[in-house]
Amino acid sequence: MNVMVRAIIRPEKVADVLQALLEAGYPAATKLDVFGRGKQRGLKIGNVHYDELPKEMLMVVVPEEDKETVLRTILETAKTGTEGAYGDGKIFVSPVEAVYTVSTGVQEGATDTPSPSLATV
Amino acid sequence: MNVMVRAIIRPEKVADVLQALLEAGYPAATKLDVFGRGKQRGLKIGNVHYDELPKEMLMVVVPEEDKETVLRTILETAKTGTEGAYGDGKIFVSPVEAVYTVSTGVQEGATDTPSPSLATV
Amino acid sequence: MNVMVRAIIRPEKVADVLQALLEAGYPAATKLDVFGRGKQRGLKIGNVHYDELPKEMLMVVVPEEDKETVLRTILETAKTGTEGAYGDGKIFVSPVEAVYTVSTGVQEGATDTPSPSLATV
Repeated sequence: MNVMVRAIIRPEKVADVLQALLEAGYPAATKLDVFGRGKQRGLKIGNVHYDELPKEMLMVVVPEEDKETVLRTILETAKTGTEGAYGDGKIFVSPVEAVYTVSTGVQEGATDTPSPSLATV
Repeated sequence: MNVMVRAIIRPEKVADVLQALLEAGYPAATKLDVFGRGKQRGLKIGNVHYDELPKEMLMVVVPEEDKETVLRTILETAKTGTEGAYGDGKIFVSPVEAVYTVSTGVQEGATDTPSPSLATV
Repeated sequence: MNVMVRAIIRPEKVADVLQALLEAGYPAATKLDVFGRGKQRGLKIGNVHYDELPKEMLMVVVPEEDKETVLRTILETAKTGTEGAYGDGKIFVSPVEAVYTVSTGVQEGATDTPSPSLATV
């Protein structure tokens, strides 16, 4: 089984995170320009201040057993300084049923759900 | 467990939907510029007319028990007038296995799948 | 049950894939501009060369039973020539719990999880 790891992070951290993923053995990634809203400039007196700021989303699909390594790599690289700060972002992990490579038409790591008809496309 | 609610809506509805989500207690959201194709200008004589139009996608990740509130908030705010119209958009709900906050490295709402090693990052 | 099929493909293949999906009976699609990193210009002597290149992501949500048709349509249309090439892209299939139409507030294909309260929004 594969999982999709989506990290919504600061734009200035993207190059570092992509480099760290590459060095950890995960070159394949998809990057999207997004806007994020959250508690991104800390607290105002009396109420929380919410901002909408440019972020980048990185999508990495990896086998279940690589999930912790990918998470740790992103978490270590994407945070601000050693303490982290509001607005450093979030990571979402979600299930992926199947992955296909377009050039070959072949399903990756198919074990429990082989799809021979598709694999011959 | 968390769910990801993705709403693909009209760009002119985004501000209202984000405001309604904030007032309902859901400030955190991610916004993406997308294009949508669907039955967006109604019917032509004899066959359906399909358009590709700019849309916005909002992504909100919330605990399972907040799903209905978030759905209702978006559905009420994103539709055109009181009747709705072709092109008002779609909402997709999908499962999320885990959510991490980058600044702290901590997994949110971890009950059934604690990840102490990651929480200490 | 529905599935989300995400295809990350070459920008120059998007029009063909969308047309093929339309002809196969799948007009509804969402398109996102993304960047992809992978083994996209083949091998250099001694080590693999990784590129970050503009790609398009197509998102199509269909009932489980239409999954193979949609996959086959995309795989046949998105690859380069008859052999395919590095950089033709990937397809990810992931589960979708529920789909709502904004204009009507109604959940689509609700069989095992009816949501009457939402349907009346």
